[in-house]
Amino acid sequence: MKLATYQDGSRDGQLIVVSRDLATAHYANGIATRLQQVLDDWNYLSPQLQDLYVTLNHGRARHAFPFEPRQCMAPLPRAYQWADGSAYINHVELVRKARGATVPESFYTDPLMYQGGSDDFLGPCEDARFASTDWGIDFESEVAVITGDVPAGASPDAALEGIRLVMLANDWSLRHLIPDELAKGFGFLQAKPATAFSPVAVTPDELGEAWLGGRVHLTLQSAWNDRKVGLTDAGPEMTFHFGQLIAHLAKTRRVRAGSIVGSGTVSNQDWSRGYSCIAEKRAIETIEDGAPKTDFMQFGDTIRIEMKGRDGQSIFGAIEQRVVDSNAE
Amino acid sequence: MKLATYQDGSRDGQLIVVSRDLATAHYANGIATRLQQVLDDWNYLSPQLQDLYVTLNHGRARHAFPFEPRQCMAPLPRAYQWADGSAYINHVELVRKARGATVPESFYTDPLMYQGGSDDFLGPCEDARFASTDWGIDFESEVAVITGDVPAGASPDAALEGIRLVMLANDWSLRHLIPDELAKGFGFLQAKPATAFSPVAVTPDELGEAWLGGRVHLTLQSAWNDRKVGLTDAGPEMTFHFGQLIAHLAKTRRVRAGSIVGSGTVSNQDWSRGYSCIAEKRAIETIEDGAPKTDFMQFGDTIRIEMKGRDGQSIFGAIEQRVVDSNAE
Repeated sequence: MKLATYQDGSRDGQLIVVSRDLATAHYANGIATRLQQVLDDWNYLSPQLQDLYVTLNHGRARHAFPFEPRQCMAPLPRAYQWADGSAYINHVELVRKARGATVPESFYTDPLMYQGGSDDFLGPCEDARFASTDWGIDFESEVAVITGDVPAGASPDAALEGIRLVMLANDWSLRHLIPDELAKGFGFLQAKPATAFSPVAVTPDELGEAWLGGRVHLTLQSAWNDRKVGLTDAGPEMTFHFGQLIAHLAKTRRVRAGSIVGSGTVSNQDWSRGYSCIAEKRAIETIEDGAPKTDFMQFGDTIRIEMKGRDGQSIFGAIEQRVVDSNAE
Repeated sequence: MKLATYQDGSRDGQLIVVSRDLATAHYANGIATRLQQVLDDWNYLSPQLQDLYVTLNHGRARHAFPFEPRQCMAPLPRAYQWADGSAYINHVELVRKARGATVPESFYTDPLMYQGGSDDFLGPCEDARFASTDWGIDFESEVAVITGDVPAGASPDAALEGIRLVMLANDWSLRHLIPDELAKGFGFLQAKPATAFSPVAVTPDELGEAWLGGRVHLTLQSAWNDRKVGLTDAGPEMTFHFGQLIAHLAKTRRVRAGSIVGSGTVSNQDWSRGYSCIAEKRAIETIEDGAPKTDFMQFGDTIRIEMKGRDGQSIFGAIEQRVVDSNAE
């Protein structure tokens, strides 16, 4: 099943069901108005949405309309939790190698993860507004999941069962603000402004055999200013699968319905696959030539993030954002 | 005006208005059912609640009932953001001095703040469940505010205007998990389990002249196992006031309605005032005697946190929690 949230002027938008081919949609009225409602009461509400989804796919839904990703907010326009892992250890290795640091042994068994702000997410086609390019504006193409309730102390296997929906994320990062925040030890606050999500969130069964071992075995495409810069495989090199990430988060506390957990930048050892964030490109340049030569993003730049299934169809719709000067309004 | 949230079996509870003396309460039915609704639409809904509050205080509310703090959830049982500062630099100085570290100069101008989990808060009288005392279980007595919408880049003065409600927090901390998480640089995740909040959240005008310069100039009382261990002044030694904390958070992103911002452990230079967390007591012992001698909390321990107005009346009601072995259920 595929779900999305349409803008309606409210903070939480209107829940819609989207057809598998992303061509048509239908309001979920009569079942639920907001996605959080569905996550709060999944066992009761999701079968009703699934029925509507089947009807829609068969072209028999009465009030179906053409699906327009530009009308979408983030599937959860705001959430009670956003915890983002850094599950592709290759990314960590590259960034550290570029600054002459090693990767602590513990990083291979204990996931890196930060608690992000979740009060204000960006829709998939919403402009990303920043006051200065001096901040080092960067995209991060990621896979993310939305959970149901997961008890404290859950095992990775049990945590996997708590995954309700899968989507894509653009974890906007302000690279030049990161070193100071890392040095303080308290995590990111200013360096991680509002995150954007794909138009559509899908149940794991929509991924078919590509959903295996808590990982999405498909290619994540990133195009920066219409140039394909990343065709990274999100599957085998994900060091910690989503069940492990959620279990890490749940070690000392419950994880409640509607929590979003991210994979971190998708990254491959094979550099020819490109990159899912500019910081990684700069790390490779530094390792090869002693210094980065690619700049971070400028006002007016665009980023497009998408993932296609084995049938070649877009699964989540595309994140398509533009970087905008917030002072120019 | 004083607001609280009563348990009703749902995730968000039922909004109630509480009388100034905390003796009686009234459901906010007909105005709003949940506190987040009010924060989303403050200018329209809060005057209606204020009218009910006045009627209640005059003993004229028709369906008033005795207020029972034990029936309370956190005022916001879950929130879209919880960002906790460490605004009393004396606390930072003590903890660092005990481990032989100095305080970086920047800490006096740039607030320390971490992004906390906000999907699952504890009610004021709810047990705090942990799987092991080896984690180093500690309370942290704090003041916290709930904001309305604050634009990105807001000044500290403008941010102050965004404060809607004030309450107390017990920021449960697992001290023995902190060093490893600090070393990773990505902030706290496992070391900061579910936070508890006071029964009642109040508008700043309820604090009268004690609300001055973005600080609460009153004494925060902490009693551990019924022994008063802290009578710390929350006012003059708050290095960064709440407007500065919110502006710090809003530097690169909007802060949306219902965001909770905490002060961090209230701490005074005069050690005779006691402590608002055990870590600080242990830091003082280490500075004086070379090693801590006070243990962290054990299963069965209790903590009581309260703040009284200049008239001697409890403002927010008391946080009264017990530490419970989560394996013993």
